[in-house]
Parts: sequence; C-alpha cells; structure tokens
Amino acid sequence: MAMPLNVLEKTLNKKISLVLKDGRVLEGTLTGFDDYMNMVLEDSEESFNDERRRLGTIILRGNNVVSISPVQ
Amino acid sequence: MAMPLNVLEKTLNKKISLVLKDGRVLEGTLTGFDDYMNMVLEDSEESFNDERRRLGTIILRGNNVVSISPVQ
Amino acid sequence: MAMPLNVLEKTLNKKISLVLKDGRVLEGTLTGFDDYMNMVLEDSEESFNDERRRLGTIILRGNNVVSISPVQ
Amino acid sequence: MAMPLNVLEKTLNKKISLVLKDGRVLEGTLTGFDDYMNMVLEDSEESFNDERRRLGTIILRGNNVVSISPVQ
Amino acid sequence: MAMPLNVLEKTLNKKISLVLKDGRVLEGTLTGFDDYMNMVLEDSEESFNDERRRLGTIILRGNNVVSISPVQ
Amino acid sequence: MAMPLNVLEKTLNKKISLVLKDGRVLEGTLTGFDDYMNMVLEDSEESFNDERRRLGTIILRGNNVVSISPVQ
Amino acid sequence: MAMPLNVLEKTLNKKISLVLKDGRVLEGTLTGFDDYMNMVLEDSEESFNDERRRLGTIILRGNNVVSISPVQ
Repeated sequence: MAMPLNVLEKTLNKKISLVLKDGRVLEGTLTGFDDYMNMVLEDSEESFNDERRRLGTIILRGNNVVSISPVQ
Repeated sequence: MAMPLNVLEKTLNKKISLVLKDGRVLEGTLTGFDDYMNMVLEDSEESFNDERRRLGTIILRGNNVVSISPVQ
Repeated sequence: MAMPLNVLEKTLNKKISLVLKDGRVLEGTLTGFDDYMNMVLEDSEESFNDERRRLGTIILRGNNVVSISPVQ
Repeated sequence: MAMPLNVLEKTLNKKISLVLKDGRVLEGTLTGFDDYMNMVLEDSEESFNDERRRLGTIILRGNNVVSISPVQ
Repeated sequence: MAMPLNVLEKTLNKKISLVLKDGRVLEGTLTGFDDYMNMVLEDSEESFNDERRRLGTIILRGNNVVSISPVQ
Repeated sequence: MAMPLNVLEKTLNKKISLVLKDGRVLEGTLTGFDDYMNMVLEDSEESFNDERRRLGTIILRGNNVVSISPVQ
Repeated sequence: MAMPLNVLEKTLNKKISLVLKDGRVLEGTLTGFDDYMNMVLEDSEESFNDERRRLGTIILRGNNVVSISPVQ
C-alpha cells in the first residue's frame, strides 16, 4: 500500500501542484514538509481565476491544503 | 459489522469516486490511505459542474473528504 | 439512557436516512460504523434539491454527518 | 453551579428544542446523550423556514448542535 | 491577571449577553458553565435582526460562543 | 525571539485592537488571557461597517480571534 | 529536507508576506512565532482589495494563517 506521506516524500525536489481550501492553486518545487503536511515550496506560482502571480518561497499550513499532485 | 476502514481497504487498487468538501468529485484508482483517511489516487480525474480535468496521481487530505464510493 | 452509538448499532442492517453538512440527504442500509461515526451504507441513494442519484456502497466520514434517522 | 451536562440530564425523557448549525430547529423527546453531546431524540420534528417535517427517531452529532432548550 | 474563566465565574447568577457564531445574540442569567465554556442560561431571550424571542432555559455548546459580556 | 504569548502579556492593562473571525473589530483594555488566547477586555467598544457600540467588559473565546494589535 | 518551521525561523527579523483565511494579506517583519505558528509581526501593513492600512505590531493566531512568503 502506498502511504500518503511516503508518496509525498517521493515528490521532494520535484514540481507539485496544490489546491488550497480558499480555491487558490499553487505550483512549485516541494523542498520540505512535516507530519501535519505543512509544506515548503520554492519557485512557486499562484493561479486563481486565470490570474497568475509569482510567489517564490512559500510556507503552507497543512490544514489549508486539499490536494497535492506531482506535475508531470 | 463492516468497519469503514476495512471497507476502504477492500477498494485498494480499484476505481473509486470521492466527494470533497469543496464540491469537487474525483475518480481514480485508490493505491493507499492512512488512519486519517489521507488517500492516494492514481489516474485520477476531477469533475466539477460538468467540467472534467485529468489529474494523474493525487494525494488527498482526509479532512476534506466527505464520502467515498467504489465505481462499479 | 439510550446512548447514541448504541441506538446507531440497533439500526445495523436497516435502512437509514442521513443528513450531511453539505445539505445532501443519503438513504441506504447501514452495514457498519466506527467510534468517529464514520459509516458504511449499501444500496445508497442521494437526494439533493429533489434530484435522486444511485450510489451503491458508500463510506462516509463521520465529521460530515449532521443527523441519522432510521427509515420506518 | 448548574453544570451543562447535568442540566441536559434533567431534560431526559422530556421534550426539548434544538438549534443546529445549519439553521434547522428540531423538537423531540431526549432519550439519551453522551459526553460529546451526541443525542438521541424520539418523536422528533424538524422545522426550517416555517416548513415542518416529522422525523421520528433521530441521532444527532454533538458538534452540529448550537443550543438546547427544554420545551415548557 | 484576570483569567477568562474566573471573570466568567464572577458573572454567575447575573445577566449576561452572548454573541453566537451564527449571529444570534442571547441574553439571560448565567447559572452554570464548564471548562469548554458550555453554558446554562435561565430566563434567556434571543435577538436576531431586531426580532426578539423568549427561550427560557438554554444550554449552549461552548464552541459556538464568540463573546460574553455582563449586562450592566 | 519574541514569543506571541509573551508579546500579548506585554499589552496587559493596555489598549488593544482585535479582529474576530466574524469581521467585528473590538477595542479595549486587555486585563487577562489564558493559553487558548481566551481574553478579557475592559471598556471595550465594537466597530463593524463603521458602526460603533460600547460593550464594557467582554470575555472572548480564543478560537474566534484572528489578530491582536496594541493601540499606540 | 527543509522543515517548514526551520524555514520560518530563517525569516526571523526579515520582511514576510502572509495570507490569512479571511483573505487579508499582511506584510511585516517577523519577530517571533511558536509551534502553533502563532506569529508576531512588527511594522505590519494590511492590504485587502487594494486598500492598505498600517497596523504596527500585530499578534496572529496560527490557525488563521494560510501561507507565508519571505519578501525579496
């Protein structure tokens, strides 16, 4: 069985796409996370209603994260 | 009695349909989950208001999941 | 005193009606539940704003459940 | 001092009125509850925006309950 | 330093005004509370959008309470 | 490093401004708080959409507080 | 792996930008935080719908924080 946190670990230093509870979508390179799914992204970019904005480094509180996908 | 996590385990490597709190519906193959009902789906697809979008692998935070159904 | 989880247990293998936080109403046969009121329904059907939809087996996260009634 | 759970216990087998987080009001006879304020009502009736509906037995998740009043 | 629960205790058997998360305002005599700030009010009255309604005894779940003020 | 609860302690008996989750802004003298950031304000005043209202003593549940600023 | 709280620690005494659950964006110098991501900002400024407002010192409850970015 693929444990969620193990699958997340395999995306370390890779580009991921995140959906937040407030509807924002973030893309960036995952450089770290903890057991609460707090995460650190580098070179991140936010998109919301077709607007994009560069954010650089971002720390995310895990309880705002809905879903995480590796970007192929 | 059918324990919810046991029933979930029986859908491993099968196609499931999920409803999230934000109204999105996801379909994909369940490849893993943990005690918090965090889940991993492969070959997933999102549908929302009749729009469909391919997502591939997706990690879901359990506290955003409302319900899970095996796809017959 | 009628403990809530004991009353729930008496509805095992009987038809129940559930109200979820998102306003959906589900009907189905309760085949299992755990201490968090996560539940398993068989032959379930969803109704929302007078639309009905067959769902078959469904696993429900307890924290989305508002109320449960046996269907007489 | 009147402890809330003790006051609730005094309403056992009496008619109470409940307000839920989703705005519904329920009336029924309280036949049981637990420490999480999960409750069991018998002969319950729901009212919402002046519509009334008979529900019979209902199990309520405590975290959806806002307030409870005995019906005089 | 005035600890919040101690200040609440000083309002026992006095008239208080409460704001709930759903916007309702309740006034009544505080006759008890517990560590979760579940409370019991007697001779309570609800006001919402300038409508007032008598409620008598009411048990409140603490997690729905926003703020509490003694009525001078 | 300035620990948040220590910074809060330094505002004891001083005027602070609070933003609550429901959008209300409260100003008053902080006379106490506990580890959950439940707080007691004296001589408090509420403002919401440019309306102001005197509240006197108020006890606030910490989980409704968004941010706290000393009033210079 | 970059642990989220360690990355946050590296922004101490630097300017950060925060997004809160209620949609407000705050900028200021991070002078402290605790394990719950409660934070202290100095010389902070709020922006919401293109309006800016000076706030000076602000204490933030961690559970209202969505994301944190260092300001380059």
